Amino acid sequence: MTPRPSHLQISSVAPHLSCISQLQHRSLASNCYSTTAMAPHNVEVEAITDTTGVPLPDPLAAPMPINDIRGRRKKAEKSTWGVAAPANSERFKSYSHSHKPKAKRWDHYISTESKSRKGNSLKNAAKYLGKPGLISLGGGLPSSEYFPFDSLDLTMPSVGKYSEQETKEEGVKVHVGKHDLAEDKSIFDIATAFNYGQGHGAAQLLRWVTEHTELIHNPPYADWACHMTIGSTSALEMSLRIFTQPGDYILSEDYTFATAIETAAPMGVKVAGVKMDDQGLLPDSLDQVLTNWDSAARGGARKPFVLYTVPSGQNPTGATQGAERRREIYKVAQKHDLYIFEDEPYYFLQMDPYGGPDAATPEPPASHAEFLKEIVPSLLSMDVDGRVLRMDSFSKVVSPGSRVGWITGAQQIVERYSKHADVSTQGPSGMSQLILFKLLDEHWGHSGYIDWLIHIRKEYTHRRDVMLRACDKFLPKDVVSWKPPMAGMFHWLQIDWRKHPHASTKSLTELEDDIFQLIIEHGALVMKGSWFYAEPDAAHDTMFFRATFAAAPADKIQEAIHRFGDAIRESFKLKN
Amino acid sequence: MTPRPSHLQISSVAPHLSCISQLQHRSLASNCYSTTAMAPHNVEVEAITDTTGVPLPDPLAAPMPINDIRGRRKKAEKSTWGVAAPANSERFKSYSHSHKPKAKRWDHYISTESKSRKGNSLKNAAKYLGKPGLISLGGGLPSSEYFPFDSLDLTMPSVGKYSEQETKEEGVKVHVGKHDLAEDKSIFDIATAFNYGQGHGAAQLLRWVTEHTELIHNPPYADWACHMTIGSTSALEMSLRIFTQPGDYILSEDYTFATAIETAAPMGVKVAGVKMDDQGLLPDSLDQVLTNWDSAARGGARKPFVLYTVPSGQNPTGATQGAERRREIYKVAQKHDLYIFEDEPYYFLQMDPYGGPDAATPEPPASHAEFLKEIVPSLLSMDVDGRVLRMDSFSKVVSPGSRVGWITGAQQIVERYSKHADVSTQGPSGMSQLILFKLLDEHWGHSGYIDWLIHIRKEYTHRRDVMLRACDKFLPKDVVSWKPPMAGMFHWLQIDWRKHPHASTKSLTELEDDIFQLIIEHGALVMKGSWFYAEPDAAHDTMFFRATFAAAPADKIQEAIHRFGDAIRESFKLKN
Repeated sequence: MTPRPSHLQISSVAPHLSCISQLQHRSLASNCYSTTAMAPHNVEVEAITDTTGVPLPDPLAAPMPINDIRGRRKKAEKSTWGVAAPANSERFKSYSHSHKPKAKRWDHYISTESKSRKGNSLKNAAKYLGKPGLISLGGGLPSSEYFPFDSLDLTMPSVGKYSEQETKEEGVKVHVGKHDLAEDKSIFDIATAFNYGQGHGAAQLLRWVTEHTELIHNPPYADWACHMTIGSTSALEMSLRIFTQPGDYILSEDYTFATAIETAAPMGVKVAGVKMDDQGLLPDSLDQVLTNWDSAARGGARKPFVLYTVPSGQNPTGATQGAERRREIYKVAQKHDLYIFEDEPYYFLQMDPYGGPDAATPEPPASHAEFLKEIVPSLLSMDVDGRVLRMDSFSKVVSPGSRVGWITGAQQIVERYSKHADVSTQGPSGMSQLILFKLLDEHWGHSGYIDWLIHIRKEYTHRRDVMLRACDKFLPKDVVSWKPPMAGMFHWLQIDWRKHPHASTKSLTELEDDIFQLIIEHGALVMKGSWFYAEPDAAHDTMFFRATFAAAPADKIQEAIHRFGDAIRESFKLKN
Repeated sequence: MTPRPSHLQISSVAPHLSCISQLQHRSLASNCYSTTAMAPHNVEVEAITDTTGVPLPDPLAAPMPINDIRGRRKKAEKSTWGVAAPANSERFKSYSHSHKPKAKRWDHYISTESKSRKGNSLKNAAKYLGKPGLISLGGGLPSSEYFPFDSLDLTMPSVGKYSEQETKEEGVKVHVGKHDLAEDKSIFDIATAFNYGQGHGAAQLLRWVTEHTELIHNPPYADWACHMTIGSTSALEMSLRIFTQPGDYILSEDYTFATAIETAAPMGVKVAGVKMDDQGLLPDSLDQVLTNWDSAARGGARKPFVLYTVPSGQNPTGATQGAERRREIYKVAQKHDLYIFEDEPYYFLQMDPYGGPDAATPEPPASHAEFLKEIVPSLLSMDVDGRVLRMDSFSKVVSPGSRVGWITGAQQIVERYSKHADVSTQGPSGMSQLILFKLLDEHWGHSGYIDWLIHIRKEYTHRRDVMLRACDKFLPKDVVSWKPPMAGMFHWLQIDWRKHPHASTKSLTELEDDIFQLIIEHGALVMKGSWFYAEPDAAHDTMFFRATFAAAPADKIQEAIHRFGDAIRESFKLKN
């Protein structure tokens, strides 16, 4: 392994250090931008290469310097950024990964539907567009002349000044002109983004997500690829259609994201639950379910080969798999040749430990390096076989309304996905992609985005602590118990229903509904645990409610937990 | 029928009359807007009711006065517009349709997959949110505090000043604040649109599309409903999953939208072609295909019951079904109990007749009434049974990159669609919806939008005429023939391949590819007709190329047709 030349080590940036990180990422830009609205200074720096001037062959053994990325971008033809230009994440990787092994092939698992996808012949005609001087009367793309918008201005946070108030008062105004690309002011504009795109999304944003994925996960095989999605719910549906047939089972945590079950069910796909603890899915239970798979008892279903898991801040339990737990799960996946859907909307909402009701909320990580070190490594980062399809999302960290996310996985699987996207979603909204590109690439850059994630982490840690302190204060601990969540948005409250006065006369389901309705009468809404059963028809003997600390302000969180406690006390006829 | 009181008749607005239409639609608004950036005047007018003060029971026998719509909007609670608020197009209809018959039931056609859709239990919990004072710790929706945007400004055309140049110079700046809804400045804002939504889309835009559909189509049954889509390609896929099972056939024009075939094929659904003339699909051929359906010859497939058709400016042929043709098709559909997918992206790109190479381009319609009268009525407008699912799109008339469209059909079918959307697309991008809402509802209103459509119609008529004149000038008419398209974006050029020097030694497919490659060598790209075969494996004896006049500027269109003509001459060894 070549040691990294020291001049590559651009020091990481503390979250409240705004100017430096902003300057650094902008100064390394290799493409043209509309800099007027964004960069007050424009500094030329030397190109980043190794000491001999050749791009580094394998710099990924150590964490990649964040601001290195822009410097490593290859010069691109303008046509790379044109209307509906085909793109491939391969060319957007900052480093070569060709020395790594290739992903395994998954032909034996791919469904009839997915196998038969040939893609879109009209989109294929785009390959001729590269011919110099060619006039296209081919694609039925409207002329941008008829998009009734001339410009778009967005006010967004300056790097390091991330609060809503700071954004309002000191935010940066970012301008988008209609023909910025043609006028060499930016590589993305209204004329391009508001027209048709490819199923994989615009090259402009695909480059950013590829670089981000390389920076955070650095998958240990060569032919990994990124592809944009219209959000992870759709990504899950499309991925299920790649792998499953009616009658199949997939595997998931015992309590799992209700929408995932409801996405799978109409396809004739059921979920087999795997036992959990406070670190989520238990590898031994996973192994047992697979080893003891009883096809006859499961209506003739073949042994499952897809695991759907939410490793961080799992919905609904809030459980987060530690690094060791993830490695153990991956080992079981290898043993049974499982393919893994790693659904990670809450990945960057990992938090510091809860210190108890009297402890102060801990300080956030002091540097990018520290932040990235503290994040539990992803399954994707351990995926030597290419058996993980990771689903990333902007919903929890930027905006759910963008309906933009991305997947990362083996080229073979991403290609199946892409063929489907071309004849269904046609890729995410170009309007959304343009807004995200302006924020993430041209304005913040990778460095400013990591700063934002550190900000968000701090905010969610604070929110969680508000809820946990309220629970400590207001809930009857002889009936309600919980573990502090280490990531995500959810707090998972277990109810010792056997202590309920009607425990011997009412079913668990009836009791859960009684309590649920009483909580609403008291003026709080939480979610029923039973809505998240992986196997709704199986026998259950635990009762939970899910409460989120993501949405309400602090005083409302406290008040709602207070009401929740009152409802529990009333239902269980406890004294105050 | 009650005659319409004359004071309801707000005179329709000529396309270049900017002020009046802008004022009229704004003055009738019943909701609060951020008016500062848009309406220089704010005029109070009397509420629009009939002479007794009661809303008109059935005003739809005559065309509805466009500017009446806003006046008829019912006062809505603020919660109607809140984050992920459930909505139903029923409450957004301006007039009562309850005197009309209900749609037929389609249970006998609905697929196993669609029948089993129960929707999303978490979204169902939204019904409790109406309780006054309730604090929700339910939905995992992020706080808008963490959306890194404070405002959005859009420059868009003033009503009546629609050219790109006018927009640049005299466009209106429309402002969107983060908390406009809470601050009573608008009913839609960043805090709402950038958060999660419902599968059916935001109430704000759903109201607009419902009103627009009522205005243009006025479906002749009671329980029609609108529902937003992420574009018609996705809508087609989702609709096919409602009705078809693997092994099924659907019906379509002999040459049809390639993406439609490629969307259907992986589901195991094939297309049976119906013969066409220059008005598109032939009702007699449709009847014959169904009457003579030979299940054994079609691999055991049951008789088709879904017709996919593009009635206006059909892709690829450019054919437009006249009103009488549509009625005949509908009659055959009734005879065979067909369900119809009416895919109408080009509906508003209907044009005036081509007057020949020396005639001037005809004048556009002089009023809204004239425009609406000239538009061929939709199948939806004739749909007494509720057997049509119409797919509308903003792609060809506003922006394809919005990835926003909508369907209209019987409540039963729309509900099936909605259940799917809630666990897949999760509705269109909120960013796109916000931008469209600001343009279509708050700024232009229905009246300004019709003016825009008249503008677009004129532009496309001009573009088509440029191409037709070039064809008249540059193409060898002994080999190439065509009919002037009356709508859409496409010109369909037939090649008399039997006159080709190699006609006796090469197959039709080989000849088509030879000519296609030669056209590219000459510097023009058109699409192969064979890419649009409904039945690619059937025998074919016609050769076509599709050329679009939508994208390139006039001089490029002429030059490309010139090159096309040269290539044909060279291939057929004709003298210049």
